[in-house]
Amino acid sequence: MRKTIVGVMGPGEQATPQDLKYAYELGQFIAREGWILLTGGRQVGVMDAANRGAKATGGLTVGILPGKDTVGMSESVDIAILTDMGNARNNINVLTSDVVIACGIGLGTVSEIALALKNEKTVICLIKNSECQALFTNLNPKNLFFVNTPQEVIHLVKKILLSIQK
Amino acid sequence: MRKTIVGVMGPGEQATPQDLKYAYELGQFIAREGWILLTGGRQVGVMDAANRGAKATGGLTVGILPGKDTVGMSESVDIAILTDMGNARNNINVLTSDVVIACGIGLGTVSEIALALKNEKTVICLIKNSECQALFTNLNPKNLFFVNTPQEVIHLVKKILLSIQK
Amino acid sequence: MRKTIVGVMGPGEQATPQDLKYAYELGQFIAREGWILLTGGRQVGVMDAANRGAKATGGLTVGILPGKDTVGMSESVDIAILTDMGNARNNINVLTSDVVIACGIGLGTVSEIALALKNEKTVICLIKNSECQALFTNLNPKNLFFVNTPQEVIHLVKKILLSIQK
Amino acid sequence: MRKTIVGVMGPGEQATPQDLKYAYELGQFIAREGWILLTGGRQVGVMDAANRGAKATGGLTVGILPGKDTVGMSESVDIAILTDMGNARNNINVLTSDVVIACGIGLGTVSEIALALKNEKTVICLIKNSECQALFTNLNPKNLFFVNTPQEVIHLVKKILLSIQK
Repeated sequence: MRKTIVGVMGPGEQATPQDLKYAYELGQFIAREGWILLTGGRQVGVMDAANRGAKATGGLTVGILPGKDTVGMSESVDIAILTDMGNARNNINVLTSDVVIACGIGLGTVSEIALALKNEKTVICLIKNSECQALFTNLNPKNLFFVNTPQEVIHLVKKILLSIQK
Repeated sequence: MRKTIVGVMGPGEQATPQDLKYAYELGQFIAREGWILLTGGRQVGVMDAANRGAKATGGLTVGILPGKDTVGMSESVDIAILTDMGNARNNINVLTSDVVIACGIGLGTVSEIALALKNEKTVICLIKNSECQALFTNLNPKNLFFVNTPQEVIHLVKKILLSIQK
Repeated sequence: MRKTIVGVMGPGEQATPQDLKYAYELGQFIAREGWILLTGGRQVGVMDAANRGAKATGGLTVGILPGKDTVGMSESVDIAILTDMGNARNNINVLTSDVVIACGIGLGTVSEIALALKNEKTVICLIKNSECQALFTNLNPKNLFFVNTPQEVIHLVKKILLSIQK
Repeated sequence: MRKTIVGVMGPGEQATPQDLKYAYELGQFIAREGWILLTGGRQVGVMDAANRGAKATGGLTVGILPGKDTVGMSESVDIAILTDMGNARNNINVLTSDVVIACGIGLGTVSEIALALKNEKTVICLIKNSECQALFTNLNPKNLFFVNTPQEVIHLVKKILLSIQK
């Protein structure tokens, strides 16, 4: 009965136009597959764009908020989980996601990729950053993928979900 | 766009038959109103009964799990939030709920009533325990209600939700 | 090599003069025994009084703060643990204490007694509140003591520490 | 009255002999300066080596443990903070440290560098990894230093502590 949750992580204020476009498309694809979208829930950057994409396509969205109320929350979050844990909520983001997608890069995103891999989650990076790729590839060759388009991300998520036989 | 979340807290292994019956009915009522049910997510006691009631009525259920995986999770949880925080997740349970319902009493429930009131959440107790009522009534006269039936709980939740004008 | 940590929990702004007097004395006694004092670390109520008592007697004090900085911290805290977890840090307070002392009562204190007992910690209550005593006694007969003076508390802590053979 | 806390982060099981040697020396230097050493507290890798170095020099050590008990804890931890939060405790590690030192690199270390910088903490890296340096340097030019020896680390910590005028 448990539903599949796909997390999209990425920069907030520092997101590039490319990050936002990809995040919106990822939200659309995730909704179209019937998966639940999970983000950090704030009304900014990749989080907000992914939520907007998912809602535009009729999806269901979960936001794991850093605060104790909904101030600063994306208006496209359906289910707001209020943690009051600040950045420690990043660990909940990755544990709760069946697959973690990193769309663009920021300090929070780096912490989430690291925590996800440490928790043996599969991480798919839609990141054009050779240092990021080299760093994480050296630290953990398993469960880590770098791809170039949202389509490739979704294709890979499907394969991974099949392999983990939920 | 954010959906209303109603939390049902209560004992696990120590739940009485009465607690379980009430929890199941609360789950049904919550689903019927279109609210999301939130529980601690474990496959035992009030948590499991409320989730089963909600699913029997076509509702949507969120479980805030203490662990890092779904071992021991109620099969009636749709959306599993994996915190890996043990009992500290009780604070997330109450912060995330628009209204907190305590159905029966255990140590975890007492912690949740206390944390909810400390966070200025409204708490409705379906608890026949005069010491519990006396203790909390002395500590916090606002936002705390003791009632006798699941019907009264739901009637009160409706009034409270109107008053907080989500 | 690990040092013994004794936690003193109790109300903040709502502490009575009696609570403050007892907390100060507990801090003194704890320091005198060479134990480390643990509190919630804020500059108010039982937390601050216990810290002041411990420092007046040359003790070492640990404060588990709810915030991400030292704003509002007792000036008598030596070691500030910054959690940024709000009231969820109450679970860390009780897990970290070898024995938990509740000195007076507030909502936070009730949550800490409940979480401590749930985690099978020993709790000694210096609380004159018959409902509190009745409620918790009904829920958990083991590891819970109600006493009348700081001297009795310390006498009991010594016995308990011997029995858990650190 | 609050004491200075210097955190040493680094790999556990994957630590290199060089990492362990440096961590031990860092522990010694930190103790010699009268600062408190903070680590993740486990009996492995950089955490354990730094704790042993600090104790060999008469220092005081704080371990922020991931579990709810002291199983697997370094025997050189004086003050064990039991979080039961798994890897989410990494955020407490960095918030609690006045300065964060990364000694060697692993997934947990990467998460801690990222969380520390996100929380605007100063981070000193004793890491010979050009991708790590390039990645973080691109993300956050402030408050981040890469140095080559434990001596340089300590020299820099002193300067930073003076500048933040505790």
